[in-house]
Amino acid sequence: MGRWEPNSRGRLAKAAVELFAAQGFDQTTGAQIAARAGMHERSFFRLFPDKREVFFHAVETAQREAVEAIAGAPAGVAPLDAVAAALEQRCAIIQRHPGAALIRHSLVAANAELRERDLSKHAELAAGMAEALRERGAPEPVATLVADTAVAVFRIAFDRWIGDPEHQDLPRLFRDGLSELASILAPRTRG
Amino acid sequence: MGRWEPNSRGRLAKAAVELFAAQGFDQTTGAQIAARAGMHERSFFRLFPDKREVFFHAVETAQREAVEAIAGAPAGVAPLDAVAAALEQRCAIIQRHPGAALIRHSLVAANAELRERDLSKHAELAAGMAEALRERGAPEPVATLVADTAVAVFRIAFDRWIGDPEHQDLPRLFRDGLSELASILAPRTRG
Repeated sequence: MGRWEPNSRGRLAKAAVELFAAQGFDQTTGAQIAARAGMHERSFFRLFPDKREVFFHAVETAQREAVEAIAGAPAGVAPLDAVAAALEQRCAIIQRHPGAALIRHSLVAANAELRERDLSKHAELAAGMAEALRERGAPEPVATLVADTAVAVFRIAFDRWIGDPEHQDLPRLFRDGLSELASILAPRTRG
Repeated sequence: MGRWEPNSRGRLAKAAVELFAAQGFDQTTGAQIAARAGMHERSFFRLFPDKREVFFHAVETAQREAVEAIAGAPAGVAPLDAVAAALEQRCAIIQRHPGAALIRHSLVAANAELRERDLSKHAELAAGMAEALRERGAPEPVATLVADTAVAVFRIAFDRWIGDPEHQDLPRLFRDGLSELASILAPRTRG
């Protein structure tokens, strides 16, 4: 306690989600989260500005990895392919932990503040991916169109998957969504 | 005062945006807004739960009109065409009032709470349009894919347009965005 401890943010985030799941988001205090993680309350508020941010700690980490995957894609990979590969990878990781996804999803669905922050986090993910695409040389509006659309398709795939996560394949729902969107839009280019 | 007055919400919303523009969002109180609209402070809080909602009153009205336009489109109009027509109409209205759009845009850009609520309002617009499409018989995930994608393209077009609203055509930027997205996605169906 008080000394530097490795991965303090990760420990607090884990304790927070456990408490949110057990007793609800509104009923959980920063002091309870800190206690469960074996830390001082003031450590909590030094590391996270509010309860919403601790909830999205894991999401932020995953989103940073998705942006890094785009930056690290081989030269010559098209913007859509780089973004699709990064989000498909993210889908595969979520698919492996359906219980955690269900807990997070039900907490977000039940709390208007978490829903708003969830929208912000996905907007930040799209903005981060668009920036990574521009750094790879993608022009605008291609970078933003690709990033925003892919995140929208990812969210739609997740919302379908979470209704029955044991019997559906999230990476496949995401790929199918991109293909279906291509089919819907295609006639406009011919017309 | 105290008696029923027509369009109280509209008058409060107009007064609110004028005050937000003149003195900033955070510096404006519900009492000031009510006074400018010639109403009691308690009328303000009876009609709007918070300052953010009064800011988005005009946006909500416009979004309701866009959803109604989809519901009222002739039978047989494809989901994408119904949504594109509704949002293009919305673009044309915004284009006619660039000063109002600039004021609203700068207020949203400067305030994190308004940015979060702005994301929520656009998510509600997409959800409302998807529901209107389902009521017209569109299946899922087509309805949600079309609505979410079109709103994303609308937002991207608006963000480009607001950088130079006097010399750009917002409805055209929106149409071009849909065409460009179709081109980006098209090779996936061939591959």
